[in-house]
Amino acid sequence: MPSISLKTPSASYDVTLGTSLLKTLRQRITRATGSRTSRIFFVTSPALWKLWGEAVTESFESATVLFLPAGESHKRFASVEKLLEQLARNGADRDSILVAFGGGVVGDLTGFLAAIYMRGIRVVQVPTTLLAQVDSSVGGKTGVNLAAGKNLVGSFHHPVAVIADIDVLQTLPKNELRAGLQEAIKSGVIRDPKLFSFLEKNADKVLAGDTKALQTVVDRSLRVKADVVNQDELENGLRMILNFGHTIGHAIEAATKYTVLLHGEAIGWGMIAAIRLAEQRGAMSEKDAKRVVDLIHRYGPLPAFKAKAERLVELSAGDKKNRGGAKRFILPTGIGTVEIVTDVTEDELLAATSAMLQEMSAMTKTKKQVKR
Amino acid sequence: MPSISLKTPSASYDVTLGTSLLKTLRQRITRATGSRTSRIFFVTSPALWKLWGEAVTESFESATVLFLPAGESHKRFASVEKLLEQLARNGADRDSILVAFGGGVVGDLTGFLAAIYMRGIRVVQVPTTLLAQVDSSVGGKTGVNLAAGKNLVGSFHHPVAVIADIDVLQTLPKNELRAGLQEAIKSGVIRDPKLFSFLEKNADKVLAGDTKALQTVVDRSLRVKADVVNQDELENGLRMILNFGHTIGHAIEAATKYTVLLHGEAIGWGMIAAIRLAEQRGAMSEKDAKRVVDLIHRYGPLPAFKAKAERLVELSAGDKKNRGGAKRFILPTGIGTVEIVTDVTEDELLAATSAMLQEMSAMTKTKKQVKR
Ligand SMILES: NC(=O)c1ccc[n+]([C@@H]2O[C@H](COP(=O)([O-])OP(=O)(O)OC[C@H]3O[C@@H](n4cnc5c(N)ncnc54)[C@H](O)[C@@H]3O)[C@@H](O)[C@H]2O)c1
Ligand SMILES: NC(=O)c1ccc[n+]([C@@H]2O[C@H](COP(=O)([O-])OP(=O)(O)OC[C@H]3O[C@@H](n4cnc5c(N)ncnc54)[C@H](O)[C@@H]3O)[C@@H](O)[C@H]2O)c1
Repeated sequence: MPSISLKTPSASYDVTLGTSLLKTLRQRITRATGSRTSRIFFVTSPALWKLWGEAVTESFESATVLFLPAGESHKRFASVEKLLEQLARNGADRDSILVAFGGGVVGDLTGFLAAIYMRGIRVVQVPTTLLAQVDSSVGGKTGVNLAAGKNLVGSFHHPVAVIADIDVLQTLPKNELRAGLQEAIKSGVIRDPKLFSFLEKNADKVLAGDTKALQTVVDRSLRVKADVVNQDELENGLRMILNFGHTIGHAIEAATKYTVLLHGEAIGWGMIAAIRLAEQRGAMSEKDAKRVVDLIHRYGPLPAFKAKAERLVELSAGDKKNRGGAKRFILPTGIGTVEIVTDVTEDELLAATSAMLQEMSAMTKTKKQVKR
Repeated sequence: MPSISLKTPSASYDVTLGTSLLKTLRQRITRATGSRTSRIFFVTSPALWKLWGEAVTESFESATVLFLPAGESHKRFASVEKLLEQLARNGADRDSILVAFGGGVVGDLTGFLAAIYMRGIRVVQVPTTLLAQVDSSVGGKTGVNLAAGKNLVGSFHHPVAVIADIDVLQTLPKNELRAGLQEAIKSGVIRDPKLFSFLEKNADKVLAGDTKALQTVVDRSLRVKADVVNQDELENGLRMILNFGHTIGHAIEAATKYTVLLHGEAIGWGMIAAIRLAEQRGAMSEKDAKRVVDLIHRYGPLPAFKAKAERLVELSAGDKKNRGGAKRFILPTGIGTVEIVTDVTEDELLAATSAMLQEMSAMTKTKKQVKR
């Protein structure tokens, strides 16, 4: 079973990746947490638990399950309070362990619960979406949303183990799978040309949910994430490259009030904008740019949305990734390499965003013509 | 100005102690935080701000003030959410600084806000109660209450500076002052015989609020706390000694639903119970025990309360300080020395608690007789 090591100044743990891992979940958790385990609390969503609850608890004699309704709208403070009270009422103590079984929403919120309950208890991440497996379950970022903005509250709190079972992806809705694959493309562009080629050559298999192909994609994407986090846990430098596509991606999500696109889909469009900016600057060749944009669309379709370029640029300025004045931008310079730059002008951003929006509207028109 | 250094694996900062510090607060904060400061947000309580707001903001050109109503009942999750939303709406970013101006309630909650807003921003503690100056503002413990129990939620998040101005204690209600002095007695008993003697010899001055005497008490108590935290930030060992008197103290607070006694008063009774237990064991001489109990009463009166010994012992078992099975107890062995023991039996605890309760009822009777 391939396992990937995270080693940061504040934590050290393994990500185990494979198939049929749920069968032996109890043993895997015990191995990671040792004997100092009083009780295990699962946090998950009702529909997901219906699909997988039996398999998950096969290796357990008993289990306490706390439910968080599915969806981004439940990743908020009120849910945190409710679950904390449930933990306390059910006798969770400092030696209890939370197991997040779900996508990024369950993972982020459960990680945050673990970070603050009794000033920190242990959490095991069992990610069930592609996005959670390749990205959110690893690296210690936890958080919830405020009415005033997404992920405005949170902690750095690493899991003691991540157990990613490829099998659970079988029930993942196809659009969720495709959205997660945009993050895999991101990993390829910023740091792993082999992953990028693999995604090009094996698109059919990957999109059909072929287990072996998916495992390769998750494995390589995870290694990119782990490698980056190991070098810069707290996002003071290198870790920022994981935000490739996120400047405009986040703005798109905000402009569409998080209802039109999945996160990965917004990042897909955001990456296209970043690629156009890189092309305009001459930082990336036309040929490489075309390969990236083609791959993003190959893993689409990315849904169209309505937003003005000016508005997106405006919203991108409020992105919390931008400290004080200097706006950092992750500029792709080839397939597998990016640079962090601070001299991107508003005009450049506007031009790139407009180019991306034009592409979108051209595609929408083509589709309509085809339909007729 | 005496300044005490905190140096732990995760943080390093100074506690500045003195008089007339508020006048130059702005400069002091800037010195501690450097140029990377976009905006300052004060968190305080309305009545306290009425007394001191002008003095606090004298050195500021402008200030945003967020209010938390006074009292333990507001140290809870709903307040956290409300204040987080206010921070976001007022444009707080990663470079913003929170300044907690208040007692332990404001300090604990503001520290928690700072711990989780945007995964951690900086906080300056400006403690205004004796308890906050000698204890809660230093050491990085932050937290709020759940309906299910006190301080069940929180983080370790150190301030970047603590600025303790003795002047502000002038408006502190006398019972709050006395309650805080119980924590100073605690510091003396666990680690500083000179502080203990000082409290014995200067009781009149200290209780009258004499600035110089109070400054000595705060200074020495703080050094005890800093020294302990510097050696064991995360309470894996030594730091537990700060919980002397807290096993039964917390139980008293819970039994009386936090409405009859101030925290320090409950700790006063809790210390008496611990002293009786030490005496019964022969761990502490009768003479030393008498000195401690006399001093506790000298800084009283500790209000009487109603609770059965059995109930207190039962409640003490639920104290979150007790990991898994082994119950740790801080056993005084002399004036200035304690031991962490794990072999205290329920019977011993019951006997000691009963002795404490008998003492209380004897005192109440005496008082009644005097009144007649
Ligand atoms: N912490 C980080 O570093 C990080 C990184 C990226 C994204 N995120 C966060 O992740 C969240 C998005 O996560 P997500 O994309 O996983 O969405 P999600 O958690 O909302 O899951 C998507 C949907 O799929 C369902 N689902 C999950 N697994 C399933 C399965 N195996 N079979 C069937 N249905 C399944 C879920 O119940 C949900 O309805 C966002 O809140 C984002 O902010 C965090
Ligand atoms: N973090 C820690 O390490 C730690 C340690 C001990 C206690 N605590 C916490 O501290 C809290 C108790 O703190 P506290 O005793 O300071 O009580 P508090 O914060 O409730 O203050 C007591 C009262 O005095 C008022 N007040 C404060 N300063 C004043 C002043 N200078 N003049 C006039 N009025 C003033 C307050 O508004 C309040 O009404 C508890 O919640 C406890 O859990 C935390």
